[in-house]
Amino acid sequence: MATKKRILIIGAGRSAHHLIKELANYAEQSDHVTLEVTDIDQQRLVELQAEIPVSTFVSNMVEAEDRADLLKPFDIVVSMLPAHLHINVIKTCVELGIHVATASYLSDEIKSLHEAALNAGVTVLSELGLDPGIDHLSAMEMLDRIRSQGGEIKQFESFTGGLIAPESDTNPWGYKFTWNPRNVVLAGQGGAVKFIQEGRYKFIPYHKLFRRTEIIDIEGYGKFEGYANRDSLKYREIYGLEDVETMFRGTLRRPGFCRAWDVFVQLGATDDSYELPHMESMTHRQFINTFLAYHETDSVELKLRQYLNIQQDDVSLWEKLEYLDLFSDVLIGLNSGTPAQALLAILSKKWSLASQDRDMIVMWHKLIYADETGKQHERHASFVLEGEDPRSTAMSKTVGLPLAFGVQLLSEGMIERTGCILPVTPDIYLPILERLKARGVHFVERDVT
Amino acid sequence: MATKKRILIIGAGRSAHHLIKELANYAEQSDHVTLEVTDIDQQRLVELQAEIPVSTFVSNMVEAEDRADLLKPFDIVVSMLPAHLHINVIKTCVELGIHVATASYLSDEIKSLHEAALNAGVTVLSELGLDPGIDHLSAMEMLDRIRSQGGEIKQFESFTGGLIAPESDTNPWGYKFTWNPRNVVLAGQGGAVKFIQEGRYKFIPYHKLFRRTEIIDIEGYGKFEGYANRDSLKYREIYGLEDVETMFRGTLRRPGFCRAWDVFVQLGATDDSYELPHMESMTHRQFINTFLAYHETDSVELKLRQYLNIQQDDVSLWEKLEYLDLFSDVLIGLNSGTPAQALLAILSKKWSLASQDRDMIVMWHKLIYADETGKQHERHASFVLEGEDPRSTAMSKTVGLPLAFGVQLLSEGMIERTGCILPVTPDIYLPILERLKARGVHFVERDVT
Repeated sequence: MATKKRILIIGAGRSAHHLIKELANYAEQSDHVTLEVTDIDQQRLVELQAEIPVSTFVSNMVEAEDRADLLKPFDIVVSMLPAHLHINVIKTCVELGIHVATASYLSDEIKSLHEAALNAGVTVLSELGLDPGIDHLSAMEMLDRIRSQGGEIKQFESFTGGLIAPESDTNPWGYKFTWNPRNVVLAGQGGAVKFIQEGRYKFIPYHKLFRRTEIIDIEGYGKFEGYANRDSLKYREIYGLEDVETMFRGTLRRPGFCRAWDVFVQLGATDDSYELPHMESMTHRQFINTFLAYHETDSVELKLRQYLNIQQDDVSLWEKLEYLDLFSDVLIGLNSGTPAQALLAILSKKWSLASQDRDMIVMWHKLIYADETGKQHERHASFVLEGEDPRSTAMSKTVGLPLAFGVQLLSEGMIERTGCILPVTPDIYLPILERLKARGVHFVERDVT
Repeated sequence: MATKKRILIIGAGRSAHHLIKELANYAEQSDHVTLEVTDIDQQRLVELQAEIPVSTFVSNMVEAEDRADLLKPFDIVVSMLPAHLHINVIKTCVELGIHVATASYLSDEIKSLHEAALNAGVTVLSELGLDPGIDHLSAMEMLDRIRSQGGEIKQFESFTGGLIAPESDTNPWGYKFTWNPRNVVLAGQGGAVKFIQEGRYKFIPYHKLFRRTEIIDIEGYGKFEGYANRDSLKYREIYGLEDVETMFRGTLRRPGFCRAWDVFVQLGATDDSYELPHMESMTHRQFINTFLAYHETDSVELKLRQYLNIQQDDVSLWEKLEYLDLFSDVLIGLNSGTPAQALLAILSKKWSLASQDRDMIVMWHKLIYADETGKQHERHASFVLEGEDPRSTAMSKTVGLPLAFGVQLLSEGMIERTGCILPVTPDIYLPILERLKARGVHFVERDVT
């Protein structure tokens, strides 16, 4: 009998628990793999072991000089480090001939290891979480299926949202933080949004992004609104849709969110590039006033309404702002920070999950294709998954499960492609989608007439 | 008799002609200096000599390995290179004990040479053009005068505009390019605008900058509007106004310009960070449409009006857009480029100076101070200067003259401070303001009651 394959997960934070649990069960039930978990923080490993019995050791894989020695015994490594810290680990894995998987975007830095990985016979599998991840798996399965039936893809749109379940939807924003809150505050920044629609290239600057939304209706869950992700254009190549007329990827919120969020964008309150003076003594009200023109007597409320043209009877928007205590004299509670950090502090007071709250993931694809006779068809596919509680979220499940299943495939020798790859081929997406379905992540398709 | 001091001007482009002419005259009439001019471009030197008889030689001072040998014979060097190219020249000058002057902002890079310059007994004089330059000279003279009379400065605002003379004001924008057009298109980008007003810190994001203007009336020249420059806060220290309640620096345009310019900002048409596809075949109309939502039949005009809420009867704004042929099917005329480059190409077709056009510089300071009894006073100071023709502009004159006079002072041994300095002390500002006055650059002050 062959020796068992050794799997190592780097990073034991809360967001990794679903992944670890899944692979721990898999290791226990199989006879061909073992699992170990490492983290820089001893306490985190203790907390993990209270929940999941698994071998652990403390290490600093980002900076350790003996990283190669530490990694050498393993056959497959999963990095749950923050995205910008993967590179050293992946480099060492490639040198040692170890397969690696992550849920993060395939960066140019990682891509530069492609040749080395090919030569070493190593698979570096990226973008295998929720988004990116399940979006790739499900889109490619549907696209390939239609193409194999002679269809020609004309338009493709795809939206994902990390939201809250209907029963936990208890504030006027229809939103709470269920994942990295910092990413929510900074969403859309860093360059113009790019997509193609009906053959026309379209560009949206950050300050218009949240006013260019699209309404989407998902049966049984009601209406959502979607705003565009940064760069949809590159997905034409990834999905083999170089000639597609429309390629649009976006993020879902509940209707009304984006218009209210745009208030912060317009004010400049999401800026993360400079420190605000006197943050230690700044109130919510002063924070908002910092972005408004000076006036001796006019109120912050009136100045804001006038500046952003918010009508007196626009109750839906105004109640969202008031809900956040934006105009109150309460301290922000930071000693220093950027506008974005101050905003995050204010939002966190209201948007944190309560003990009974459950999150919800929504993903939606829209596809227009021509069949062999040239007739056009429209097809929608969607999945919705609700979490269990603030710890066991649908978000951590849908990020962790695809990655766990990808690692299973690697351990089973089912993935033959080497180099830096994405989960866009049937050898990967078919078995993972099947295993996801068994865990409640399944897409519902419908043809629209 | 002592040997003559040798002055070298690096850079012989059009914008340097006033500087060169002034110093050439000075050298001819004095018996203590000689002048030479160098440029990388032989042709430019030939053109210069057709206009001004002066010794020249070709050199690449930015990259030349023998830069030290080339510079060694000189006592004073003026760099008219683009701002980011000064550093190598200044470094070599400091090493060789040569004084240097520029019209550019004192960068952190240059500031880092301060100790070395002090030790070498070298004066590195920066920010001696129009803005920065004449603004410093005139503001500091006025501030010091009021302070010496026991006044305490409460508020300071300062605006400068490079505009066109009233007789040349022949388009609905009240504007033509009179200096570096690229800087006009990119104005305000690169981070939030910062200032302090009545003791409150204020921050404006780029996408709101051109809607937060102030109207200024200058006797004999009518109304202007001012938008804020990037960072006014740092001038508190430079001007010795650490406790001032208002510090605001801005740029002047004719009223209505900013609101119309904001159309480009809102569209994202001033973005210089990505290349537009298919630029070679793009028309003005397609350029605008690239930033608007797709629609099968709606016109670009209607989509623009709806997107930016431009009323049907807002003739003043709309005629500005139409004047630029924004909605016409004429080709932009570039093979590739960013949105900002495309916009620049479109604007250049209409905003270039005609053969008879004269430009106009406007500078305006507003000062509020308390006298010894605590009584508050408001004082305005302004100067307006018109150019002669599209070659001999007020802009090149007001950039070149202060620099020429600063070099004269250096050659006369009138500047004793060494290290990296700004023209904010009486030894510098008094004689330069006096010489400027003799050339028609003089400030008119009035007390406002």
